[in-house]
Amino acid sequence: MNYPKPLLALIQHLRRLPGVGQKSAERFAFHLLTLSTAELGDFARAIAEIQQRVGACSMCGAVAEGTRCSICDHPARDTKTICVVASPRDVFAVERTGHYRGLYHVLGGLLSPLERKGPEHLAIDSLKERIATLPAEEVILALDSTLEGDATALFLKEELCTLSVSVSRIAFGLPIGSAFDGVDGYTLGQAFTGRRQVS
Amino acid sequence: MNYPKPLLALIQHLRRLPGVGQKSAERFAFHLLTLSTAELGDFARAIAEIQQRVGACSMCGAVAEGTRCSICDHPARDTKTICVVASPRDVFAVERTGHYRGLYHVLGGLLSPLERKGPEHLAIDSLKERIATLPAEEVILALDSTLEGDATALFLKEELCTLSVSVSRIAFGLPIGSAFDGVDGYTLGQAFTGRRQVS
Repeated sequence: MNYPKPLLALIQHLRRLPGVGQKSAERFAFHLLTLSTAELGDFARAIAEIQQRVGACSMCGAVAEGTRCSICDHPARDTKTICVVASPRDVFAVERTGHYRGLYHVLGGLLSPLERKGPEHLAIDSLKERIATLPAEEVILALDSTLEGDATALFLKEELCTLSVSVSRIAFGLPIGSAFDGVDGYTLGQAFTGRRQVS
Repeated sequence: MNYPKPLLALIQHLRRLPGVGQKSAERFAFHLLTLSTAELGDFARAIAEIQQRVGACSMCGAVAEGTRCSICDHPARDTKTICVVASPRDVFAVERTGHYRGLYHVLGGLLSPLERKGPEHLAIDSLKERIATLPAEEVILALDSTLEGDATALFLKEELCTLSVSVSRIAFGLPIGSAFDGVDGYTLGQAFTGRRQVS
């Protein structure tokens, strides 16, 4: 006995969610079968309508309910600083730190030859325009510490060097709360390179 | 900056999927934002329509596209044997083994005082009826090897003892491919109790 076709189709949809394998997708699908019709309808509607109700900010590319996000629209944000992130989700991660009061710019990914993602796929031209028109004084690259993140940071530094803007990258080092001997050598090396005077 | 309300609602729906925490739900939601409108619509439809297109078999409670499942409707299945499982999903797990040619009966859960699940919540009366009308000669309890599974098996054995049917439970022991010293003592004990003559 194989799964009935509608169930199989649902499982295949659920499998496309990031990090979800066959077993999890099956578990999700059988769970959905146990929900009430009202709950199921609400869930389906939440999915169907998400793109109409939430889109990309026309300025920075972050998540917005209208054409502009609440950060670009906020009068008290520091417009001299732009934090460059890869995805809309990263904006919320930085916001949660409570350490940043400037604006954002979402690249829409990182450079990745393997995924055939070149500079033309990233929002680099619009970043340059924004730096010039704001005008911004500092650009903070808040990108992954991976091969793709490093390549993208290097590329952006080159691209932005003609503009009169300072470019920095967030610090790499020991995660807070981590033990010294639990950290890999590469991270430790970066932590030494990025050491700061104890004041 | 908090998540916009529609995104928050979507994340809360996704969090209710089994085993999905806040981080995974957020990852799923941001992934859904990147899908095309057509893909998103298909996904939502697959969820909304699943209960109309797939329901419970009126005989055994397994997943069925009509009123009866393809196993109850199959002319070649052995109607003298009923395999009792907790959930519709378990039917597919047993079917995949290819070792079983009888019928099924889905209880709809296991006895669990903690979850306030008593015998009145399980499909026990309909099981007795089916045993009498088929009539079945053997009932195989294919239930979890947990406290709830053990309690349910014990309860069913008592309930069915007045009927002229043999009641067995699937074997517990070493999983195939497992090393002797990687198995816990309780499993090993069960494996000794359930030992079989080498023929």
